[in-house]
Amino acid sequence: MKLVRYGTHGSERPALIDADGNLRDLSAHVADIDGAALSPESLAALAAIDTASLPLVEGEQRYGACVGQVGKFVCIGLNYSDHAAETGTTVPPEPVVFMKATSAISGPNDAIIKPRGSTKLDWEVELAVVIGSHVAYADEAEAASAIAGYCVCNDVSERAFQIERHGQWTKGKGCDSFGPIGPWLVTADEVARPNDLAMWLEVNGKRYQDGNTRTMVYKPAFIVSYLSQFMSLQPGDVISTGTPPGVGMGQRPEVYLDVGDRVELGIQGLGTQSQVVVAAD
Amino acid sequence: MKLVRYGTHGSERPALIDADGNLRDLSAHVADIDGAALSPESLAALAAIDTASLPLVEGEQRYGACVGQVGKFVCIGLNYSDHAAETGTTVPPEPVVFMKATSAISGPNDAIIKPRGSTKLDWEVELAVVIGSHVAYADEAEAASAIAGYCVCNDVSERAFQIERHGQWTKGKGCDSFGPIGPWLVTADEVARPNDLAMWLEVNGKRYQDGNTRTMVYKPAFIVSYLSQFMSLQPGDVISTGTPPGVGMGQRPEVYLDVGDRVELGIQGLGTQSQVVVAAD
Repeated sequence: MKLVRYGTHGSERPALIDADGNLRDLSAHVADIDGAALSPESLAALAAIDTASLPLVEGEQRYGACVGQVGKFVCIGLNYSDHAAETGTTVPPEPVVFMKATSAISGPNDAIIKPRGSTKLDWEVELAVVIGSHVAYADEAEAASAIAGYCVCNDVSERAFQIERHGQWTKGKGCDSFGPIGPWLVTADEVARPNDLAMWLEVNGKRYQDGNTRTMVYKPAFIVSYLSQFMSLQPGDVISTGTPPGVGMGQRPEVYLDVGDRVELGIQGLGTQSQVVVAAD
Repeated sequence: MKLVRYGTHGSERPALIDADGNLRDLSAHVADIDGAALSPESLAALAAIDTASLPLVEGEQRYGACVGQVGKFVCIGLNYSDHAAETGTTVPPEPVVFMKATSAISGPNDAIIKPRGSTKLDWEVELAVVIGSHVAYADEAEAASAIAGYCVCNDVSERAFQIERHGQWTKGKGCDSFGPIGPWLVTADEVARPNDLAMWLEVNGKRYQDGNTRTMVYKPAFIVSYLSQFMSLQPGDVISTGTPPGVGMGQRPEVYLDVGDRVELGIQGLGTQSQVVVAAD
């Protein structure tokens, strides 16, 4: 299934994309595409619905973040060897983990808000994993079965805030609008090869990132298992798994986003995002 | 007001402590002590209630975390100059910010779960700020008025996970049970001098931390204003503001918690916490 949330910000309704590409409302079946909706039992119930029986939603719709009520937004850093090299670092012997503020989560086509004082606004196309079952101290098999699905994430980053403003990466990773996820949450049963998905990102039509999840160092099931050694994961948690080469900080000279720029990105089978950069109020 | 949540884990009910120290149920007035309950309007409505009219809750009760549905759990590091010195660092020119997983939040007297593989389990008594109004790019006056109240927080930390396992501090800060908050959320109107509160922490009856918020480098209103330059804050967000000297890592030789140890801590006017350390399942 391709699960989505549509409507105005903060009032999104749950829906799915049917086999013909139509938007079908799921409000009669689940309150939201959230942790409760993503349990194995709930996903099985949703999969059993005759999609033709669901209300057709017509007209142009805004897509919201494809998961609501996210409890944790965890990220893996430096998880592609070539990306580590372009940032002047090396892949660490175990995953680098950091958190993005859940208030950074936005819809796939919402504007990227350039924060006041931002000078190094950057992009990162990433494969995100969405959790469907509670896990703690999970082995890789259990971790794999706890993955409800996958989506595209742009791990928008402000490099000066992240690196030059002292301490942890938090300041440059969690700004409002720095976490577009979606358009769809594609359930795991429809992602046959999560470790072999083409991924790309363009700015104003120029392709900067052109990678594939096969060059990830730590794969999704390992990451979920690894994280669960440090913290339990709950249904609805989102884990973004790192970016391939081609970020702005890696260009020579460096390239950063400015107001008016258009960022487009996508992952094979998971859909595309398109964001314009606007100035913070 | 002293606002609390009582009952079994995951089913806590909202309540307050009346002037005589009695527990009084607030379920008829608010669904939870959460962001919605902490708005200025809601706090004014709660303050107007004749507490004698509220159901008295008798018998021994478990206290849950004093805030429910926390969206973000943000922390400030190295915010007491003496603590920075004991950890071999210096106070940075601007606040160090990191995030704890919201799944780490626990009740003030719940057990601290020593994670599998933990060798350096440590403690940190901290003054936590609870947000009551949405803020972004707030000046200090606006930030101060966005503070709904204060509570005690034990920023439990696993130093090997935090420092020796590569990358950011996330792994050593967000383990389950690493965020006891409470017992009470004391509303800001009853905390006349947040910048002059005695605070202490003992392990097995030995006092290790004996500080005062007056030696904080960055004060609560400044911190909220500062954070709001990087991310918007929502009602129910919790910000823990750093710890005074006396953590286990700062002892010579270093002292860490083990199963069976008892940690007790408190802040003047905000109540006390008591936790026993247990092994992870």
